[in-house]
Amino acid sequence: MLIVMHHSATAEQIRTVQEAVQAMGLRAEPIPGSERTAIGVLGNQGYVDDSGIRELPGVREVIHVSKPYKMVSRDFHPVSTVVEVGGVSIGDGHSPVIIAGPCSIESEAQMLASAHLVKAAGAHILRGGAFKPRTGPHSFQGLGVEGLKMLRTAGDEAKLPVITEVMRIEQLDAVCRYADILQIGARNMQNFDLLKEVGKLRRPVLLKRGMSATIEEFLAAAEYIVAEGNGEVILCERGIRTFESATRNTLDLSVVPLIREMSHLPIIVDPSHATGKRPLVPVMAKAALVAGAHGVMIEVHPDPDKALCDGAQSLNGEGFEALMTDIRRLLKFLEIEK
Amino acid sequence: MLIVMHHSATAEQIRTVQEAVQAMGLRAEPIPGSERTAIGVLGNQGYVDDSGIRELPGVREVIHVSKPYKMVSRDFHPVSTVVEVGGVSIGDGHSPVIIAGPCSIESEAQMLASAHLVKAAGAHILRGGAFKPRTGPHSFQGLGVEGLKMLRTAGDEAKLPVITEVMRIEQLDAVCRYADILQIGARNMQNFDLLKEVGKLRRPVLLKRGMSATIEEFLAAAEYIVAEGNGEVILCERGIRTFESATRNTLDLSVVPLIREMSHLPIIVDPSHATGKRPLVPVMAKAALVAGAHGVMIEVHPDPDKALCDGAQSLNGEGFEALMTDIRRLLKFLEIEK
Amino acid sequence: MLIVMHHSATAEQIRTVQEAVQAMGLRAEPIPGSERTAIGVLGNQGYVDDSGIRELPGVREVIHVSKPYKMVSRDFHPVSTVVEVGGVSIGDGHSPVIIAGPCSIESEAQMLASAHLVKAAGAHILRGGAFKPRTGPHSFQGLGVEGLKMLRTAGDEAKLPVITEVMRIEQLDAVCRYADILQIGARNMQNFDLLKEVGKLRRPVLLKRGMSATIEEFLAAAEYIVAEGNGEVILCERGIRTFESATRNTLDLSVVPLIREMSHLPIIVDPSHATGKRPLVPVMAKAALVAGAHGVMIEVHPDPDKALCDGAQSLNGEGFEALMTDIRRLLKFLEIEK
Amino acid sequence: MLIVMHHSATAEQIRTVQEAVQAMGLRAEPIPGSERTAIGVLGNQGYVDDSGIRELPGVREVIHVSKPYKMVSRDFHPVSTVVEVGGVSIGDGHSPVIIAGPCSIESEAQMLASAHLVKAAGAHILRGGAFKPRTGPHSFQGLGVEGLKMLRTAGDEAKLPVITEVMRIEQLDAVCRYADILQIGARNMQNFDLLKEVGKLRRPVLLKRGMSATIEEFLAAAEYIVAEGNGEVILCERGIRTFESATRNTLDLSVVPLIREMSHLPIIVDPSHATGKRPLVPVMAKAALVAGAHGVMIEVHPDPDKALCDGAQSLNGEGFEALMTDIRRLLKFLEIEK
Repeated sequence: MLIVMHHSATAEQIRTVQEAVQAMGLRAEPIPGSERTAIGVLGNQGYVDDSGIRELPGVREVIHVSKPYKMVSRDFHPVSTVVEVGGVSIGDGHSPVIIAGPCSIESEAQMLASAHLVKAAGAHILRGGAFKPRTGPHSFQGLGVEGLKMLRTAGDEAKLPVITEVMRIEQLDAVCRYADILQIGARNMQNFDLLKEVGKLRRPVLLKRGMSATIEEFLAAAEYIVAEGNGEVILCERGIRTFESATRNTLDLSVVPLIREMSHLPIIVDPSHATGKRPLVPVMAKAALVAGAHGVMIEVHPDPDKALCDGAQSLNGEGFEALMTDIRRLLKFLEIEK
Repeated sequence: MLIVMHHSATAEQIRTVQEAVQAMGLRAEPIPGSERTAIGVLGNQGYVDDSGIRELPGVREVIHVSKPYKMVSRDFHPVSTVVEVGGVSIGDGHSPVIIAGPCSIESEAQMLASAHLVKAAGAHILRGGAFKPRTGPHSFQGLGVEGLKMLRTAGDEAKLPVITEVMRIEQLDAVCRYADILQIGARNMQNFDLLKEVGKLRRPVLLKRGMSATIEEFLAAAEYIVAEGNGEVILCERGIRTFESATRNTLDLSVVPLIREMSHLPIIVDPSHATGKRPLVPVMAKAALVAGAHGVMIEVHPDPDKALCDGAQSLNGEGFEALMTDIRRLLKFLEIEK
Repeated sequence: MLIVMHHSATAEQIRTVQEAVQAMGLRAEPIPGSERTAIGVLGNQGYVDDSGIRELPGVREVIHVSKPYKMVSRDFHPVSTVVEVGGVSIGDGHSPVIIAGPCSIESEAQMLASAHLVKAAGAHILRGGAFKPRTGPHSFQGLGVEGLKMLRTAGDEAKLPVITEVMRIEQLDAVCRYADILQIGARNMQNFDLLKEVGKLRRPVLLKRGMSATIEEFLAAAEYIVAEGNGEVILCERGIRTFESATRNTLDLSVVPLIREMSHLPIIVDPSHATGKRPLVPVMAKAALVAGAHGVMIEVHPDPDKALCDGAQSLNGEGFEALMTDIRRLLKFLEIEK
Repeated sequence: MLIVMHHSATAEQIRTVQEAVQAMGLRAEPIPGSERTAIGVLGNQGYVDDSGIRELPGVREVIHVSKPYKMVSRDFHPVSTVVEVGGVSIGDGHSPVIIAGPCSIESEAQMLASAHLVKAAGAHILRGGAFKPRTGPHSFQGLGVEGLKMLRTAGDEAKLPVITEVMRIEQLDAVCRYADILQIGARNMQNFDLLKEVGKLRRPVLLKRGMSATIEEFLAAAEYIVAEGNGEVILCERGIRTFESATRNTLDLSVVPLIREMSHLPIIVDPSHATGKRPLVPVMAKAALVAGAHGVMIEVHPDPDKALCDGAQSLNGEGFEALMTDIRRLLKFLEIEK
């Protein structure tokens, strides 16, 4: 931590700050500059709470050098994490994973059709939502446990591991009974109680970036899970909220290489929610893979125009097959490229 | 709903869209313009899901006229809601309410000191957090139920109703046992399960705006609570996330007059979390009241420099007394002003 | 400047960074921490370009302690600037200034009516745009020099100093001939050539904050003008661009107390452009004054429904008179308050 | 244009709005819904100014169906524009173009080295800045006309067309004398006078997206140039400003397929300014090409650590050669892919 004093800070004020730092059991090292004094804080293990310092007289600014995460950072753990689930490996050194399926589970028939469709096209994991977060209370809210069963059946039939979102702690038992990967949605990225409970499990977790979360907050949320003992975390970029409203969100693909550098956890991309527009999904999925994503998650529905949720961003069977053909060629190319 | 067709859309494409609308049980009214055709959708009760329409060939854009909320809108319910709690009335026609207290409950002594301090200065409601959402897992997480008891005791001693945050459904029983108002934090504004459970209670709820929530989403979140039968909702602006990082968040005071116009629910302002800077709190609290807020929520700590949480934005006793003196004069002035 | 090294940085990498700093004629002071080394950079006069450092091996982050402005900062120049124009004083220790008039100058009759109207209601300075920046090329673009003459005539008639926007260097001569204060619009806040030319004049300048400018960039833009010798700069907050689209922009009122602390320059607020909604203008104008603004700038049009530009956010004569009555009472109250 | 009335709007208010529309020479078509009335506005040629309507009593919202641009939209001009310059074709049906060179022109030696370097690696166009927009006045501001000459000489030597930024109208003559393509920077995207002057020339223009410009505003800015008669416009995405500060800006790659759909103009991507981080540049350049960009613009400097500007995001010769090898293979793959 670095404490920057005002140009006009008095020697007395500087001394008071040093004493406040020492009272926290830390060392305070003044660094006199030509224009102002800064005070380096040494001896801390990790992030320091600056509340007692920030508003002391003469203090202009407090700059944090330590980050609110450590276990998920590559700086401390250089070896890449690879998440294994049902024979699929997600992470460095493995071919990118394709997760596909409908936004919502609507019926057994729809799930079976989806599962066979995405399996035949070459997907590795089946997705489907049983518990749905919806902006307004008057929209379809998901089939709940009945939906989970349909997802499991469909996954078993098509021999695909399955992933589904868990929205609250009480759903954890049911979701763990039926799903191979737990998904934490963007709106729950800072639902810290849920993160902690999920951290106590031994089940892979896909954590979506909150729609206004910085990378630092995203990694700190992952740290909650890892700190409880569950290191099987997959990060997922799904677009952030910006002033631009022509797309549903702004897909922030630069985080892919950045997170690969900052963290050892795998990072995948969801172009369906990010763009909200069917024609943009295939092209952004391919761009994500070129940017280095360890996988993509694609919304696919046998009949998107009749989907109960997010049909406008779902590919139909034909569209997904075409995308998979493209992706296979692209991955082969990228493989050669190495 | 209005469906805007491309300039080059064919008659066939327009007909297909009309049929898709009719298949949803709605009427489709073409509005031919000089440059393009638009299709008005009539007969809907509230918000229409546009998934089946948005990506049909020839469609340029779908514009929603209905909003994802109705019960909280002034358009449908012109009479202002006044929330009554422990002898305090919050809403139109009543003097603004002052909610004050520490960010976190730390000890019985700290809560008693806080309660007496804010009561003596003229506050109407005591706040204090027992369950704390924290960005990183290594920060102080709150005292839990023990803290709730301290809050209740302090409120009873000082004869102040109390408010505290509830973060998950399982905490509801405990929080309802000890608190007069339930607070839903910004990170949970779209925790829809929690909103629905809170909606089943008969207990006032203070709902904070999510840090990247539009006004439309904010009101839709309130609708979740009201739709379940609990109409005692107080909205709270606490700053939104923008590119500006000189303040913790950007306090969006314009929402105060705007929400007063759009909704019948009371709206208060939290300048402490919004600015994150002690010297800005008093001036922004006063600006909020002039903007028409039905109250303000202020962080006060007997000894901010020793606070376990958010000390840098907390006023001490002296600071809060000075602010209350100012506020009393200001409210008297605003009263005369009417 | 503080250079933060990676946890795993080698002694060799640290040495290379130190040498790079020394090659810039500066001192490098290593600060070994428990988790990583940081290197303090000393001896610089103002902002240091970090390009040669940021991507050296082992460097995690470069943190700037010096800011890209100095002359406009209160830290270096504690005495508040007061801008004097035509008998009006703008800044600390003076009653807030009211600038009012139409968005666009449309005709001599309209300007005379506006001038008499705002003068009678109590405004101190007359505004009106002769050169208009418009998003699309097919909108009304302003009357140019003819408009400037009408503005001057109207100001002289009503005995009010006048302010108008200058959009490009070639307009400077004409604008200086007719206007008392030059306005630099939000879109030109980083038109550095224009800033420099305006800095060579001895004429007060009102500089609007760019719609996505941080406070740091806003002050750096003002520094461009002051660095050229023109210290008569008035800052103006006019809303920033955020994800919220219910208001035209998000009025960031917290910058008022913040800029008063960080800079010695006066800061005023334009609630008309910030909100874009007539009913919000009066209430936000009053909130701005309570927040400590040295003035407000209000769009007023004798007949807003017929205005060629921004009529929806303009007050009519009656509305402005009512606002001025409120403002006068409020200022009297604030005066007593001190 | 669609005018949405309040639920509680009276028949009288609806009539007044209809009359106001008719007074503008347009037709007003009421569309009665189950919850409220909307009024369709017909007969307009392009964008309608809504100032006289938006604040009439009973009006809830005004929704624009026409856009503030038309000539640049694919809807009205389906045939893709291909810009030809010095033997290079930019646009649909042509291999993506690679523009490369240093941020700033520093000396003849540096420009010659840069030109030979990027030519040898396979770039098609040479870039270099002679007039530099800089956030603070104390940074290097560019070599001006002397720099332009060095750019021209270097381009001629290496047989590469050259592009450089023009910041103000007075620079146009000089820039046109020496450069093949004029660049309008992000900060000048809404410098409408400059856009109009550039529109009068017959010289290709590269228009960068403003850092907080929506796609609609970006296309409206291009419309300014095209409306004056210069149709040779190349759009350039260079990152937008968001809350995320880990990268310099947030590269919005989804605009590439979106703009290809909405407009007939070519769109290229600048990953150097967008990310501000050298290690991210190659990977995002490749992702941009996969997303469908008609080209990329890359900062290259013979000795980035000694660059006077933006060294931290510049590739050195070796880095650029490696990227070009990758890009060539990728383009060959994408070509086969078609």
